[in-house]
Amino acid sequence: MSHTVQIGKIAILLASLTDEEIKGFLPALHSVRFCQGKVGSMNMQKIISAVETAAKRNKLISEEHYRETHSLYHAIIEAIEGVTRGQIAIGEMLRTVGLRFAVVRGRPYEKQGEGEWIAVAFYGTIGAPVKGLEHETVGLGINHI
Amino acid sequence: MSHTVQIGKIAILLASLTDEEIKGFLPALHSVRFCQGKVGSMNMQKIISAVETAAKRNKLISEEHYRETHSLYHAIIEAIEGVTRGQIAIGEMLRTVGLRFAVVRGRPYEKQGEGEWIAVAFYGTIGAPVKGLEHETVGLGINHI
Amino acid sequence: MSHTVQIGKIAILLASLTDEEIKGFLPALHSVRFCQGKVGSMNMQKIISAVETAAKRNKLISEEHYRETHSLYHAIIEAIEGVTRGQIAIGEMLRTVGLRFAVVRGRPYEKQGEGEWIAVAFYGTIGAPVKGLEHETVGLGINHI
Amino acid sequence: MSHTVQIGKIAILLASLTDEEIKGFLPALHSVRFCQGKVGSMNMQKIISAVETAAKRNKLISEEHYRETHSLYHAIIEAIEGVTRGQIAIGEMLRTVGLRFAVVRGRPYEKQGEGEWIAVAFYGTIGAPVKGLEHETVGLGINHI
Amino acid sequence: MSHTVQIGKIAILLASLTDEEIKGFLPALHSVRFCQGKVGSMNMQKIISAVETAAKRNKLISEEHYRETHSLYHAIIEAIEGVTRGQIAIGEMLRTVGLRFAVVRGRPYEKQGEGEWIAVAFYGTIGAPVKGLEHETVGLGINHI
Amino acid sequence: MSHTVQIGKIAILLASLTDEEIKGFLPALHSVRFCQGKVGSMNMQKIISAVETAAKRNKLISEEHYRETHSLYHAIIEAIEGVTRGQIAIGEMLRTVGLRFAVVRGRPYEKQGEGEWIAVAFYGTIGAPVKGLEHETVGLGINHI
Repeated sequence: MSHTVQIGKIAILLASLTDEEIKGFLPALHSVRFCQGKVGSMNMQKIISAVETAAKRNKLISEEHYRETHSLYHAIIEAIEGVTRGQIAIGEMLRTVGLRFAVVRGRPYEKQGEGEWIAVAFYGTIGAPVKGLEHETVGLGINHI
Repeated sequence: MSHTVQIGKIAILLASLTDEEIKGFLPALHSVRFCQGKVGSMNMQKIISAVETAAKRNKLISEEHYRETHSLYHAIIEAIEGVTRGQIAIGEMLRTVGLRFAVVRGRPYEKQGEGEWIAVAFYGTIGAPVKGLEHETVGLGINHI
Repeated sequence: MSHTVQIGKIAILLASLTDEEIKGFLPALHSVRFCQGKVGSMNMQKIISAVETAAKRNKLISEEHYRETHSLYHAIIEAIEGVTRGQIAIGEMLRTVGLRFAVVRGRPYEKQGEGEWIAVAFYGTIGAPVKGLEHETVGLGINHI
Repeated sequence: MSHTVQIGKIAILLASLTDEEIKGFLPALHSVRFCQGKVGSMNMQKIISAVETAAKRNKLISEEHYRETHSLYHAIIEAIEGVTRGQIAIGEMLRTVGLRFAVVRGRPYEKQGEGEWIAVAFYGTIGAPVKGLEHETVGLGINHI
Repeated sequence: MSHTVQIGKIAILLASLTDEEIKGFLPALHSVRFCQGKVGSMNMQKIISAVETAAKRNKLISEEHYRETHSLYHAIIEAIEGVTRGQIAIGEMLRTVGLRFAVVRGRPYEKQGEGEWIAVAFYGTIGAPVKGLEHETVGLGINHI
Repeated sequence: MSHTVQIGKIAILLASLTDEEIKGFLPALHSVRFCQGKVGSMNMQKIISAVETAAKRNKLISEEHYRETHSLYHAIIEAIEGVTRGQIAIGEMLRTVGLRFAVVRGRPYEKQGEGEWIAVAFYGTIGAPVKGLEHETVGLGINHI
């Protein structure tokens, strides 16, 4: 792939690897800005809100500009499509998620004019609202910012 | 997570890591059966077919039993939902994908009765049918088999 | 249910029962107009077209008026949603259908002002384009006409 | 159709026929295990939960194994796609359903290795939350178990 | 276009133009019946309900006949598809809308037998539940009535 | 609305008004850059391609930068969601469209940091592939660029 910096792959690894496992990828992390978090809920609002709050608190996006919130929002929704696979609903469908997430901001392309992009990744479980009745799930959304 | 064997995470790593990077995860690979492949197309049939063919050729699923093909098919479609995020179409929407994929079969749960499950992961790029006009994409589907 | 004439149930029975089995329901058939047909394809256009052609040839809808074609079209699409469950695509997703269908036109409500309604039902199989690798599927669409 | 036992058709008949009407199909019922129920709600969680509870109480699926709950869950969701036709939402869209349902477990294929499959069928009405402002609806989901 | 009366265009103009701007289109308004309203909410039920209530209060549809409510309902849902673009959800996705709407009833086709049709249009903003973090949105649904 | 420049409304008017009718809105047009075009097809690729080509030929977006193509692409797809209402497919569903479109680029927000945004609007007809069997349709997509 001709990407200089694979912000999507970095986001997926940040969301899915343990602290120990991520050590092998530290050099890649230096080329981007990122934050990580965890959220478990049947409520999609809480998932979206947890990622937005983490991204703003860690200065990954500017709270001053709607265009950055807009960009992040669509990246989150696209990542949730991967998590929910087909119906963008969680509690309404009697299922719950337990997710780790990562937001990565960087310059994926060599050409300077391509500017910055943002990646949102989720990794965790989705299933019935009963502990253990669940399987893994992943989602990735990417947008220009 | 209470999963003994994280077939989803293994599938994602097999699809997204380089041969060099995957070396750190070799022990996890010994607990499952898997295959890998590559496919690039504007045609969703070819994506589905490439994964099914690889899984059958590598004896990950039985060609004799429809129930295994049925299980794999739904895992592939769920993974494609993550890749396409919202509209399960590629060429019809004037976009193309270049994907690496992995199929992993194993026993994710401690309880023996949970039996075998299958994970399908994609990692690669999606974008306009012009080289470079693309960004990363990921998808994961999981099913009991 | 307060329906005088259950056009949806009649359509489902016409699509799924054998000639022998349907005999028990003959009185209900006298309260409606209907036609039946068969279509097998990976091409959704052919499915839609087969139903429209049968409905027009059997004078269930008027070819003169777009409003009747419009009503039937949406009933067909809704029935196909049931057949395809989640992604309104057949061949693009490397699957094929073999369907029997029925179109039923009647007055489901006691109140005269409710006028005529149309029901489209499908029953058959959906699966891989290999004989036997398939399972049953059903769909029903209903619209005012 | 080459199905030995049409679990989908049996489920649809169990959901839509009266006690009197179903009598003509008793022999087919002896080849499967099944349960029936009723649920009316604007809340999709209640629909899903009603079917799961009935299936577990009647021992159609094992409460011990997630893989059976997982299989049933996806069959329910696919059946709801037929009921809701296009948007998997009920109350959020200001509509309500009154449904009879059936869950059927059996061996649809001659080949023994195909094992057991499960079918979930709904039949009833969907419409505005005002009595009588409603029309019929049907859905069928099938999965290997 | 061969439409005698463009009820869709009229509905869009009624929903999006100011009182001053609409003056240039008064002749077109005389060929139809219409009503207008405003609604802001994170709750899709309220959007649907606001349009239905306005249409009934202004006698655009008959409260007596379900077929007219059914026709209007589907026109509203189709218009909401344009507003929400891809996922028919508002508050669940942590977004809110502020909309003006118009319902137009008329005879779009020269041929008398085509009868009356109904158009529902929305124009306004969609965005985060924070003032100003929003952009414009439009939707149009049309149905025979 | 607090928008200084309503690029969405301008796009809708450019797509739906006649040359005569648009005259009343000329001042608004001076605050943005825009292009217009026409496309009729059963093929969604052609719709997308027609808009992209017009936008590039008229220098509304830079051909040099993928981020601008990416932004436009998503605005087009969102506008097509409004046109197709529920299933993002045209010919596959045996329907065709005849559309006028407009692409508008401008600064909708007072705050300078919000930068430029792009709006894509469609207005025309959708229906059966038979002249006259069609009704109006509209779509609007908006994105930061």
